[in-house]
Amino acid sequence: MLRPKPDETEKFMNSEQIIASLKDLMATGDAPGKVLTDPADLDTYGKDWTKIYPPKPLAIALPKTTEQVQALVKFANENQVALVPSGGRTGLSAGAVAANGEVVVAFDNMNQILDFNASDRTVRCQAGVVTEQLQNCAEDNGLYYPVDFASAGSSQLGGNLSTNAGGIKVIRYGMSRDWVAGLKVVTGKGDILDLNKDLEKNNTGYDLRHLFIGAEGTLGFITEATMKLSRKPDNLTVLVLGLNDLTNTMDVLQTFQKKIDLTAYEFFSHQAMGHVLAHGQVQAPFETEAPYYALLEFESVSDQVMDDAMALFEQCVENGWVLDGVISQSETQAQNLWQLRERISESIAPRTPYKNDISVVVSKVPGFLQEIDAVVTEHYPDFEIIWFGHIGDGNLHLNILKPEDMANEDFFEKCQQVNKWVFEIVERYQGSVSAEHGVGMTKKPYLQYTRSEAEIAYLRGIKQVFDPNGIMNPGKIFD
Amino acid sequence: MLRPKPDETEKFMNSEQIIASLKDLMATGDAPGKVLTDPADLDTYGKDWTKIYPPKPLAIALPKTTEQVQALVKFANENQVALVPSGGRTGLSAGAVAANGEVVVAFDNMNQILDFNASDRTVRCQAGVVTEQLQNCAEDNGLYYPVDFASAGSSQLGGNLSTNAGGIKVIRYGMSRDWVAGLKVVTGKGDILDLNKDLEKNNTGYDLRHLFIGAEGTLGFITEATMKLSRKPDNLTVLVLGLNDLTNTMDVLQTFQKKIDLTAYEFFSHQAMGHVLAHGQVQAPFETEAPYYALLEFESVSDQVMDDAMALFEQCVENGWVLDGVISQSETQAQNLWQLRERISESIAPRTPYKNDISVVVSKVPGFLQEIDAVVTEHYPDFEIIWFGHIGDGNLHLNILKPEDMANEDFFEKCQQVNKWVFEIVERYQGSVSAEHGVGMTKKPYLQYTRSEAEIAYLRGIKQVFDPNGIMNPGKIFD
Repeated sequence: MLRPKPDETEKFMNSEQIIASLKDLMATGDAPGKVLTDPADLDTYGKDWTKIYPPKPLAIALPKTTEQVQALVKFANENQVALVPSGGRTGLSAGAVAANGEVVVAFDNMNQILDFNASDRTVRCQAGVVTEQLQNCAEDNGLYYPVDFASAGSSQLGGNLSTNAGGIKVIRYGMSRDWVAGLKVVTGKGDILDLNKDLEKNNTGYDLRHLFIGAEGTLGFITEATMKLSRKPDNLTVLVLGLNDLTNTMDVLQTFQKKIDLTAYEFFSHQAMGHVLAHGQVQAPFETEAPYYALLEFESVSDQVMDDAMALFEQCVENGWVLDGVISQSETQAQNLWQLRERISESIAPRTPYKNDISVVVSKVPGFLQEIDAVVTEHYPDFEIIWFGHIGDGNLHLNILKPEDMANEDFFEKCQQVNKWVFEIVERYQGSVSAEHGVGMTKKPYLQYTRSEAEIAYLRGIKQVFDPNGIMNPGKIFD
Repeated sequence: MLRPKPDETEKFMNSEQIIASLKDLMATGDAPGKVLTDPADLDTYGKDWTKIYPPKPLAIALPKTTEQVQALVKFANENQVALVPSGGRTGLSAGAVAANGEVVVAFDNMNQILDFNASDRTVRCQAGVVTEQLQNCAEDNGLYYPVDFASAGSSQLGGNLSTNAGGIKVIRYGMSRDWVAGLKVVTGKGDILDLNKDLEKNNTGYDLRHLFIGAEGTLGFITEATMKLSRKPDNLTVLVLGLNDLTNTMDVLQTFQKKIDLTAYEFFSHQAMGHVLAHGQVQAPFETEAPYYALLEFESVSDQVMDDAMALFEQCVENGWVLDGVISQSETQAQNLWQLRERISESIAPRTPYKNDISVVVSKVPGFLQEIDAVVTEHYPDFEIIWFGHIGDGNLHLNILKPEDMANEDFFEKCQQVNKWVFEIVERYQGSVSAEHGVGMTKKPYLQYTRSEAEIAYLRGIKQVFDPNGIMNPGKIFD
């Protein structure tokens, strides 16, 4: 909770009074919500996947309706109580962490799919709908929700939208932002707004929908979203290529994109694949060893597309960009090839990796990666660097593994130094310090490497308009 | 220009002083801009295609650089001078009209394509680049800029983005908003901001880029934009169908979308086609008469796609939705079929049409259209109503033709009454009073039919953050 000014203490409620009030608020309406104060619940709901900041919320409110969320926000304004939204808690930037006595507003019980419209190809969801639930609903109706990532089984839609989640299909389908037809939000002032009313075309002033997407709950809380769906992709086919050189990733991308709409263009290093193979259950795609690998996916809707893909592959081999390659001949083979990319994170997890999620424009990727690699290797030659990522979007995941014989503390300290080098290079390349994970608390100290001071001043100005009392997820994105 | 408070008159410059200062400002830097005050220029640059408000600007500034635009904005703040941005002046909502002694900032001389990047498939343009110039640049590089509409030959990119222009390919490619990788803007406070730095993925706080898109120059002026390009579509094929009933437009859309990615789904009434045929140079698509017509376009990339299209067509005929149809067998035939839709506006122009650009979610189109049609026909049975539009996006263009024997004034007065009915129905259907033309001055009185009072209060709050002195395109969107 926010700290009241000392001379105003008597104006504010104490913890017991706040919890009692929350219980009253959650008891309103036809569908009563819940309040949790059990230490185990406070621990569960107070953190995300970062696990850096010890969770310490005052209480957890689990509303069932938008009106209850509104009541919480109005109460929080009147009593200067800080609110932290909580979805699937799979965030990697501590955007949904409650470490300072805040009240957590968890959307777990607002998990209903409210409406599916076949003509509009839209589905209206409460904020607590899990990504996979939305994907399944689309599939059950012969359609497709294309935003997909490792945490789809537990991440919630409200959180996905508040962090504008990306994932493995961005090159074709864009970010979460691109699939939002409409939003219902409760602003920091306690207004319920219906944003964009699910319209495809609506040019009537500033699009507040896009302001709430990616705002990490600092302007208000998303309580409902109408999501667009797509035609289900047909015969997804995967090509894994061994590349001679990093710059060849760009050559190959450009060559294929001229002819074929790629649904994914992923990248991983020889080292990354080594860990996946050592982890077991996955086979090498081919015998030839290559320093870098690219994974391409596309819809093979006709023999013509397959012929095109083979011709492009041969062209890449002739140009010396590609050393070897394999193409999936069935859905199972395609899924197996995806394992090479998808299992990287779990295969390196035991090595306590330092992780960073950064981006530059696609064409700058090779130079950018090489500079970071060089500076880390020069200063810390015993660090193992694992590169992988959504290279078709310019998004790289930098992972540095802790040397087995180095103490955790020592490693973390050195990684703070790495952060500085990395973000200085990001700034010089005009890149982003957070490609898809958001800012939260972990990237907050580095925001100015991507956003100018003038820009940040406008961000603060906008925050002031929607949340003048600073009660919505305080301490996230900026102070 | 803004009216100074009476007791502060002496603090502000008179017209001659302002013009002299503008000339000084435009003379700075290596590339001097221009100032025009000739009555013919004031007339030309002071209006758009609406031609409702008599233009009355004080002067026209034609900057060459972002820094000159910044100097103009700083000067305007210091001297309480109102600025109106001006692009290709093809707007239909009086968003770029200067009717109150404002200084027009015209981007005609900032019309350079600054950079093309083949790997990133992006092109960096000054705000005054004409849409067609961007389309041609893409084509010259084997790529495609998919936002297209009737005024592409004269509309400028800065204006397209400030109104988030749509057009005929939205169903596949989205609005102008979806093609913006980065923006350079001068805010109403005179700050130059580089928004999003052309990144595909960048989740570092509120996305100000999306705030400036569609803001009609009320928060600041866009001076540069980096636009994304797409693969050039392959063998675009057009299908024109005669439909039995309005609701069949939805059945046909849903049927085709399950199998084929449509690049356009347009609609026009029998009456609309009648005017095009009477206008000459275009032939009826087939002999069968139908009350409504749909135009579908898709990439026929293989025999399979063509077979699918034919099978879907037959399915639509069997279900009684489609009375007749024709499919293009060549690019020329496809272009000819497009004429049926594209020539509607010019064929009805001599009849002084009352025009409205409205939208609802796609599935509500039939009921929505029928209600408007019924109320107008009931009260004004001698009005001829012409419907056409981008029905795949829920966007309808309502056109009412003036009866030949009715005085202009009488007609316009009755149309004011029609406006009220139309917008009340829009509100009831949760639609938009401006699907793609923006708000400007003509839709300003009706904004509350689409945006709630609470929403409009937040729009005003945001305006205050970026343009505290209210000098940027005042009187547009809201007062």
